[in-house]
Formats: sequence, C-alpha cells, structure tokens
Amino acid sequence: MKEKDFINIIKNTLNSKLIGDDCAHLKSLGIVVTQDSLVEGVHFSRKFASPFQLGWKAAMVNISDVCASGAAPCYLTIALSLPDDIDAVFVKEFYEGLKAACGDVQIAGGDITGSDRIYISVTAIGSDRGRKISSRKNARTGQKIVVSGLHGSSGAGLKLLFEGKKEPRKFIDAHLMPRAQVEFSKKIALSQKCDYAMMDTSDGLMDALSQIAEASGAVMEVDFEKIPFDKDLMQFENFEDIIFYGAEDYQLVATVDDAQDFTVIGTVKSSDVCGVKINYPDRCVFFTKEDVEKKLYKHFKEQS
Amino acid sequence: MKEKDFINIIKNTLNSKLIGDDCAHLKSLGIVVTQDSLVEGVHFSRKFASPFQLGWKAAMVNISDVCASGAAPCYLTIALSLPDDIDAVFVKEFYEGLKAACGDVQIAGGDITGSDRIYISVTAIGSDRGRKISSRKNARTGQKIVVSGLHGSSGAGLKLLFEGKKEPRKFIDAHLMPRAQVEFSKKIALSQKCDYAMMDTSDGLMDALSQIAEASGAVMEVDFEKIPFDKDLMQFENFEDIIFYGAEDYQLVATVDDAQDFTVIGTVKSSDVCGVKINYPDRCVFFTKEDVEKKLYKHFKEQS
Repeated sequence: MKEKDFINIIKNTLNSKLIGDDCAHLKSLGIVVTQDSLVEGVHFSRKFASPFQLGWKAAMVNISDVCASGAAPCYLTIALSLPDDIDAVFVKEFYEGLKAACGDVQIAGGDITGSDRIYISVTAIGSDRGRKISSRKNARTGQKIVVSGLHGSSGAGLKLLFEGKKEPRKFIDAHLMPRAQVEFSKKIALSQKCDYAMMDTSDGLMDALSQIAEASGAVMEVDFEKIPFDKDLMQFENFEDIIFYGAEDYQLVATVDDAQDFTVIGTVKSSDVCGVKINYPDRCVFFTKEDVEKKLYKHFKEQS
Repeated sequence: MKEKDFINIIKNTLNSKLIGDDCAHLKSLGIVVTQDSLVEGVHFSRKFASPFQLGWKAAMVNISDVCASGAAPCYLTIALSLPDDIDAVFVKEFYEGLKAACGDVQIAGGDITGSDRIYISVTAIGSDRGRKISSRKNARTGQKIVVSGLHGSSGAGLKLLFEGKKEPRKFIDAHLMPRAQVEFSKKIALSQKCDYAMMDTSDGLMDALSQIAEASGAVMEVDFEKIPFDKDLMQFENFEDIIFYGAEDYQLVATVDDAQDFTVIGTVKSSDVCGVKINYPDRCVFFTKEDVEKKLYKHFKEQS
C-alpha cells in the first residue's frame, strides 16, 4: 500500500482543503476538476483492449469522476505518452474511442510526448451551474443509500479476459467499455435539497461504501438482496466478491434524503465504529476500513 | 518528427476549434486550461534535478502556459506515476517544490500510480475574469514584438549540466528552476485594448516567434541587438544559437498595439512568405517554418 503512504505525505505537505474527493470543487470558478492516469502494464494491457476501447475508457473514467461530484461534465484535456512502436492507426483509433466516449463533452487539447510505454493522463472539467455538488463526507444518519446500474459485471469481464475466455460478451464489454452515469448524476444533483454523498464504483462497490462511511464517520448498512446485478454472475465462483470488489463498473453510489424512484440498497446508520454492514437473509457482516483494504488487496493480488 | 504527425492525426480526428494554443480558452466557463507532461529520460533526468527542482519545474511550465494565454493562474492538479525505487523523502521534497513554485496558485488534487519511471502530468487552470485572452493567431502588421526577461540562460544552464560543470550557477538555476512570467502576463492582459498574440519560450525564442508568424500568416521582424540576454552568455561558442534555440527560459513573447514600457525587440510585418526575419547590424537572415524546425531538431540532437 505504498501509494496510500505517499498520499498521506502529499496531504501533509500540501495541507489543501481541496483534496479529499475524486473531483476538486473550485467554487470561485464554478467548476469541478479531476485528473486520472492510466499506465500500460499497471492499469491496462494492449493484449486485451483495442486502441478504440482504450481511448473510450480513458475518457469515461474521468467523466465518471465528474458525474460522482454531481457537476455537468463539459470538457477534457489529455496528455498521451507513446512508445516508438505505436503507429498512426493506433493514434487515430484511440482518439476515435476518446471522441465517441465524450459525446457532448468537448476535447479541449492536451499534449503528446515520447515514452517507453503508453501513459494516458486525462483531466475532466465540469460545471457546477445549477447543481448541488457532492462530497464523500456528506453521508448523514437516516439517509437512503441509492445506486445506479448493475454491479460486478466489469469485474466478471476482467476475470474472463484473464482466463482467455470471450463469453459472455456482455461482461467483457462492461469491463472494456464502461459508461459514466451522466443521467443518474444529473438527476441526483438536481433533485436533492440537502447535502449528499456520491462516489463512483471505480474501485468497487465495497470501496465506495467504505470510503463514504470513513469520510462521514457513519455506518453504511446495505441489504445484499437489494443490490442490482446481472443474474448470470451467479455462474461465477465467489460472485459476491465480484459484486463487492470487482471494480471498474463506474456505477454511482449516493446517500440522499429524497430517494424518489432511485434504487435503494440500504440506509446510513450511526455507530461508535464506522464501516459497512451487509445484511444477508440469514446473517450480517460488518467491515471496517481495514477489513475492506485487506480484502481489496487480496482480490487485486489474485487477479494479477 | 513523429509527434508532429500524430498531432495532425489528432487534429483531424477531433476536428475541435479549441486546439491550437497551449491553453484552451473555455469561454462558457470563463477559464483557460492546459495540460503538459514531463517524462523521465525524455524531459528530465534525476542525475541533474533534485526532487524539489522537479516539483518546481512541473508546476512552473504549466503556470507559464496559463501566463502565455493572459489568464490569471488559479489552480493546478497533478498526476504522478512513480517507480518502486522512489521513497517518501523524494515525494515530500517533490511536493515541497511544487508548492513553492505555486505561490498563490492552489493545488487542487490529482492522482498517484505506479510506473517504471517517473511520469508527471500537470493541468493548470486560469481565470479569464477581466483579462483579454491571447491567441498565437492574433499577430497583425504594425504591432510591436515585446518580450519579458533574459533569453538563453536556461539553454546555457543545460549545456553546462551536460558538460558536468557547476558554474556559472545563475545559468544552471535558470534551467532547473525557471520562473513563469506572472506579472508580465498580467500587465499585457490588462493593458491591451486590441487582440494580441502571446507565447512562452518553452521551446525557445525562435520557436515562439516562428509559431506566431505561422499561425498569424505574418513576418516577425526582430533586431538581434534588442534581444535582452545575460552578457556572460557570450563566453559560449554559438551563443546566438543558445539565445534562439536554447529553450526552457519560460519568458513571454507578445505582439501588441500598445507597447508601453515593455522591451520591444521588433515589429510584425506582412509578406507573401511568413516567417522570422532577424536583423543584425551587418546583415539580415530570414527563417521559414521549415528552417526553424530543421534547426530546432539539429540543436536538440546535439544536446542529447
């Protein structure tokens, strides 16, 4: 967990109030901003993803972060570093994927340099105009926990890719070409009168629940049976682990006062110890931050 | 010039009007944005630069791009990828350098990942409030060409580092710890009633002149004797090349209607062939875009 240690050093050195959520809310400019990198061999492999899919994903993971803030995604910039063996076809297809994923989000420029492996860094900017912006610190006792979409599909897709399988295609597509939850985000940001927490499930549903619990000092109590997932996931051994730790679904999890017709999976509770409580029909399991980190690390190890 | 070919493919694929200047001006949000990357072994070496100096430079090169637009630099985000041999001391000193360079510019977050070499990607955001924003397309016949600071010092510093020398220190410092021209930029952006062109000299004074000439379809006519440089540069063989092609001074070059008390080095002229004309006391030399590119490439080759 070396990156985690580094983040603490950075937080202490910078002592900035803007650091904590995936997006920083720059109130004086009326925008949110987020920057994320994808490194070949660390975050992706050219073996699995086509240039189009890579461009698509590079845009989507950053648009998803803007969606998690509740802001309207507007622009992105991209810095690309490419090794010598990359050709014009790769670059063209990569940018076609980037553009396709962007939709109404405009690509406002960037930078291209040499390198020894592919390195992609995307910055996405959103507007807070008319929107209430989220923070993972905002969960409060009594709020309902709501989610978008299906959970675990991307994790299942990655598992299939590692095993050299090509079916079911829907899981592989969920992994290689995720979709940022633009509409869900907009609906939340426009409908809530009170502060709300929201995160995407880029590192898995359990991670998002745990991060919100930790930042808000709360317990996120979830009924497992209420979590939406593709029933074909049940073919996988340990499908529950895939749902919770599979990562990269880029769905959204929010805690809201006004649940409207959103999919409710649980309730924010208070307790002396913050964490995530999962209720099954026959039992309940409590996860502290440390439990989740250990499990995330183990899940990651098994896959790489 | 493979990167150049890629840029053309990208421009054709994206077909975006926002691409062309170092900063994109996002008028609907009232901001400019720029993103640049520094790759170990391509843009810097740990042999020459301390972690503090690296952090400093990573911030400054992007703040300089915002300054070149005429906007007020406000925020930056940073994505850092680090190999396993980097320790906590490196990260702390890097961020101290970043923070020191930022001054009033706030660091609003970022991302840290693993990699096989150091990869730094910084995004800087500026506000256009009350400022007229530049474009390299804006040079018009009759405007005065004005510059900030001294030219060639950074290039001399890099030469000394390659030769294993440690003196004169002022040149090495100019290379390792450049300063973005925040005040010059502000004065230009607030004083000009007409559109103006402005660029920084990150790729050298000649490159900036040539880029403005090319984008504006003009001739940039410069009197060599008016270019400000440190007279100790004259100890170097080919010191004129260092002044024109040395790069990384991060000074600003602008074409303005109202030259006030700025340092004027020449005048924008019109001609059938655009380019840069340098007047010496005894002769004048004309450089087309192709001449400059060839020379830049040769200069780069000799140094690496």
